Amino acid sequence: MLIVDSVQNAKAGHPGMALGMAEVGYVLYRHAMKYNQRNPDWINRDRFVLSAGHGCLLQYVCLHLAGFDSVQIQDLQRLCKLGSRTPGHPENIVTRGIEVTTGPLGQGVANAVGIALAEAHLAARYNKPDAVIFDHRTYCIMGDGCAMEGIAHEAASLAAHWKLHKLTLIYDDNHNTIDGPTSLAFSEDVSARFRALGWNTITVENIHSDLKSFKDALHLAFNETERPTFIKVKTLIGKLSGKEGTSKAHHGTFNEEDVKKMRERINWGCREPFHVIPMLHREMQEQIDNGERLEKEWYSKLYAYQSKYPQHVAELRLLLSNGLLPGWENLLPKWNMSDPVDATRGYSDKCLNHLAKVLPGLIGGSADLATSNKAYLHDHGDFQSNSPWGRNIRFGVREHAMGGISNGIALHGSGLIPFAATFLIFSDYMKNPIRLSALSHAGVIYIMTHDSIGLGEDGPTHQPVEQLAGLRAIPRLLVFRPADGNETAGAYKVAVKNRDRPSLIALSRQKVQANLEGTVSEEVQRGGYVISDNSGGQLPEIILIGTGSELCLCEMSARKLREGGRRVRVVSLVCWRLFDWQPREYKERVLPSNVIKRVSVEAGSPVGWREYVGREGVVIGVDEFGASGPYSEVFKKFGFTVENVTKVAETLLCK
Amino acid sequence: MLIVDSVQNAKAGHPGMALGMAEVGYVLYRHAMKYNQRNPDWINRDRFVLSAGHGCLLQYVCLHLAGFDSVQIQDLQRLCKLGSRTPGHPENIVTRGIEVTTGPLGQGVANAVGIALAEAHLAARYNKPDAVIFDHRTYCIMGDGCAMEGIAHEAASLAAHWKLHKLTLIYDDNHNTIDGPTSLAFSEDVSARFRALGWNTITVENIHSDLKSFKDALHLAFNETERPTFIKVKTLIGKLSGKEGTSKAHHGTFNEEDVKKMRERINWGCREPFHVIPMLHREMQEQIDNGERLEKEWYSKLYAYQSKYPQHVAELRLLLSNGLLPGWENLLPKWNMSDPVDATRGYSDKCLNHLAKVLPGLIGGSADLATSNKAYLHDHGDFQSNSPWGRNIRFGVREHAMGGISNGIALHGSGLIPFAATFLIFSDYMKNPIRLSALSHAGVIYIMTHDSIGLGEDGPTHQPVEQLAGLRAIPRLLVFRPADGNETAGAYKVAVKNRDRPSLIALSRQKVQANLEGTVSEEVQRGGYVISDNSGGQLPEIILIGTGSELCLCEMSARKLREGGRRVRVVSLVCWRLFDWQPREYKERVLPSNVIKRVSVEAGSPVGWREYVGREGVVIGVDEFGASGPYSEVFKKFGFTVENVTKVAETLLCK
Repeated sequence: MLIVDSVQNAKAGHPGMALGMAEVGYVLYRHAMKYNQRNPDWINRDRFVLSAGHGCLLQYVCLHLAGFDSVQIQDLQRLCKLGSRTPGHPENIVTRGIEVTTGPLGQGVANAVGIALAEAHLAARYNKPDAVIFDHRTYCIMGDGCAMEGIAHEAASLAAHWKLHKLTLIYDDNHNTIDGPTSLAFSEDVSARFRALGWNTITVENIHSDLKSFKDALHLAFNETERPTFIKVKTLIGKLSGKEGTSKAHHGTFNEEDVKKMRERINWGCREPFHVIPMLHREMQEQIDNGERLEKEWYSKLYAYQSKYPQHVAELRLLLSNGLLPGWENLLPKWNMSDPVDATRGYSDKCLNHLAKVLPGLIGGSADLATSNKAYLHDHGDFQSNSPWGRNIRFGVREHAMGGISNGIALHGSGLIPFAATFLIFSDYMKNPIRLSALSHAGVIYIMTHDSIGLGEDGPTHQPVEQLAGLRAIPRLLVFRPADGNETAGAYKVAVKNRDRPSLIALSRQKVQANLEGTVSEEVQRGGYVISDNSGGQLPEIILIGTGSELCLCEMSARKLREGGRRVRVVSLVCWRLFDWQPREYKERVLPSNVIKRVSVEAGSPVGWREYVGREGVVIGVDEFGASGPYSEVFKKFGFTVENVTKVAETLLCK
Repeated sequence: MLIVDSVQNAKAGHPGMALGMAEVGYVLYRHAMKYNQRNPDWINRDRFVLSAGHGCLLQYVCLHLAGFDSVQIQDLQRLCKLGSRTPGHPENIVTRGIEVTTGPLGQGVANAVGIALAEAHLAARYNKPDAVIFDHRTYCIMGDGCAMEGIAHEAASLAAHWKLHKLTLIYDDNHNTIDGPTSLAFSEDVSARFRALGWNTITVENIHSDLKSFKDALHLAFNETERPTFIKVKTLIGKLSGKEGTSKAHHGTFNEEDVKKMRERINWGCREPFHVIPMLHREMQEQIDNGERLEKEWYSKLYAYQSKYPQHVAELRLLLSNGLLPGWENLLPKWNMSDPVDATRGYSDKCLNHLAKVLPGLIGGSADLATSNKAYLHDHGDFQSNSPWGRNIRFGVREHAMGGISNGIALHGSGLIPFAATFLIFSDYMKNPIRLSALSHAGVIYIMTHDSIGLGEDGPTHQPVEQLAGLRAIPRLLVFRPADGNETAGAYKVAVKNRDRPSLIALSRQKVQANLEGTVSEEVQRGGYVISDNSGGQLPEIILIGTGSELCLCEMSARKLREGGRRVRVVSLVCWRLFDWQPREYKERVLPSNVIKRVSVEAGSPVGWREYVGREGVVIGVDEFGASGPYSEVFKKFGFTVENVTKVAETLLCK
């Protein structure tokens, strides 16, 4: 009735799934899950992920009944109201007790796989036969929509490959989606598919009349030691609502007449809306006492661990704070002008492998491009079912799941620092999880190589053009495009520091032309800075602004212009957002308003550059698809040569 | 040897798959497929899609041997060279005989499903028992990467649901991906999974020693009348190359020593590189003669059809030209200021349903949001296995496959005009196929509703912010954000006209506030135009620029400012790209450079707006994530009120 009352009161929300899955929620929060509502962040709690995020009312009601402070009756009464703790989809940053932000279907399944991976990894690294610190289960509810989404399939395939047996996926098989019966578009045998992937599958025929069958299923899942478990629970969407079993129950309020009938059918009488029967509160009190006890017991284990394994406990404690060893930044490599040049993905390789030594939580991998992305932690093994301590994750060609899984790892909250690597073009396959990293404060580091038409022969299907523009527009995300070794190190510095914000580092396939004299690792945190200027005390006549592999073009062009007697400044705009956040005076110092002759050079879409070059400036960018050919010829075709940049600058100077 | 010679010559390319699948290519082009190399566009040809697009050398070599003009020896010698007809991944717009542009893995599988859907649909609508016009098969090769990608899974699920039995998917099971053996990340039983989806599955154990087993499999597929067929072909990647059976053969050149050995193993002797044995040419000549005969026979059928079914032939011919009935635009609805207001998705509903009457090729659907998107063609039935003539496609919750399938439908080249609908936020799930529409000249119409924070209660996971910026940056794509009924009709007019370019129409969930006096359907094609101005012969003091649901805010704010004696212009910037393409004088007329006081109002990311408001202007946008709450409160919170726009404008005017 809390579900119904909340929806009727809000005149919004998705009651259907919440009603159909009420028993599942009850069993999970009352009987199955191990957690402490007094400390929702207890690290060894069981995790619950609602992949069918629109059913969040189920979760809000469960959290309320289970005694979480975060969801009071007045919060249920403010469902979907601006600023409430009960928004239309669950957000981990708004409501304590919510693990991840879900809503876009299928994401939660991948998040749950990431959480289960984190548990398996940490258990393998830190548990001792006589001191088990990490030992929790991960439960995830998915609906028909999640079952259809490709990301859920990708993640499920990996979960079985990794034998994440502590993961239980509960499939709300209610035969309805928004548009009608699932038969409109869905005729596969979902359980058989999961079996083909390597899952343990169980069907619960009638949970509405037989709670025990579901409890038994959970028990079987608990005892499974190899495969993750998929429990298909046949439910009646919008049970008792008068719209039960139809897609009409999916979202929106109910007919008041139907609500009246519902009250009659369950003998609810004329209790006020939002009434909770005291017996239920009393029953859940047991669970609350239990939660506190469980966490206490866990702490005793941790203390025992501390005395028995003092050599490991420091690292463990470091992880459980935020994973950042004091002074970790200092280990990042530095480059001199005389060092041999490399692609920025090569510099990234070195940074990543240095970081792996000082950051015990650094873990991640690539979507089958580890060698091309140069995103492999040497000497740290592969995370596989027989080596879960390994720190290199082999995602296969599954970019979308890689993003969702990385979010799960980050939001496990155990100090792990996930990185996820692919070609920049394939950020397209994982755009939504990147966005969700930003929304849910997951500090994932995205390593995106082959970051422009400069990738050459693979051609326009593989050459990013508009990706940077789209990614830079994602709120909160930091997008870096470093120009050389020191800027790459600087980007990692900021990315690692920002544990509640994702970063994306765009890196070149091709060698950059130099380690530049003026680039400074420390300046990357400002987003933009002057790398060279021959103007002395005066204002420059022109400013060339570049990023990544094109910054060097700016610098070389500046030299030519200076030879011609011009006062030229070169600015690296390595991260727009960080630059935008600088104080006005700093920005004015780097890009003085009185210098209106500006040229930006970036081998990507011009969209957004006008902000920095102003109306009179020139944007050298790519506003069409790339071309297959050797990199230098492709660059030439699109105007990314010293000659062209110089010519454009000279024309502007003569205006 | 042509494969090897091409790669050695180009010093680039992906020979491994091409070598491993050479027999498959040979059987398909020599024995299985029906096509006419003299007219690669013959509408009833069998279609071949290489989802593992990096293996394009296989396709180039097959096209060459099969006698397609588009791939001559000199084209093979220019593999991966700038401007060649043999780019690093296959592009339909570059090489005749290539059906779709592939490379991003999994896309081709969805394209093939779309092509098979188009065939099934047209066959159901136009074939007669005694006159079969549409009757071709679709073949698709996918690799391990495609098998892992979610989009391929989504598309495969739909193919079985729709019983597309003329679709044959050939899985190159070579146990290798770029990073190494597939066992790194892939342990599922792929055939069992396809069976769970409803596919007919066949395994070919050793094609390299037994061509017949593969021919038999194709024969079984041919005789299947219900299920699509999945043929797992076990192959040796990089066969004979010295790197066979390993991921080292995946891409890159071979050791010259190994090439020598290879020549020895097949007794190639010292033939020159790029030599083709004459016998093969003679053999393929049969296929060429055959192709011409097949098309001729088909034309006789078409003539017979014409005489027997004159009432249908006009529509059929219309489709086979470009599907656009002369004067179709005139049927689009028009709105007056006095008409009741609606959400722009409501106006879209009316446009779409009017268009369905005059455009026989209009076909499409939604990813389980038909009602919310208002993208349903009333009285035109659902495309289902028992009603393939239906024009509404139920994609289920599979946005990514929806995009890829729509590209396949468009590139079937039969005059079908596909539309694909979902919430704008979920363009994130289908970003890559939208991009590929633009790259491959597929005239898909994307209908994206719930286009801003204005969607309200569903909250930030469902509220697009950065999507418009990212989409506008995609080359060639037309992104519209119409403000009312007439602009929506105008957007459809341009979208439908552009048969070789995709369009995306962003539409509001919430009602707009008025059908505006100044909006003009015909002006939409210019991308931007003045909707009101009280400046008389003078220049305006300020220009307010809006799109979509915020254009009305601009207009109402302008009225207030005018009441205060100000000269104010309001500009609708409904499609940036179309406006950018206008002659300089037109743009100057709409946005005169001398009017530097400008305010843009759009409930989305500010990225890109500076181009139009200039340095001194103000961008009212959303640079953070949205919020769950009633729409009007959310709009207010983010400053989208007449009051705020007026205040911002007044402040600017007083500067």
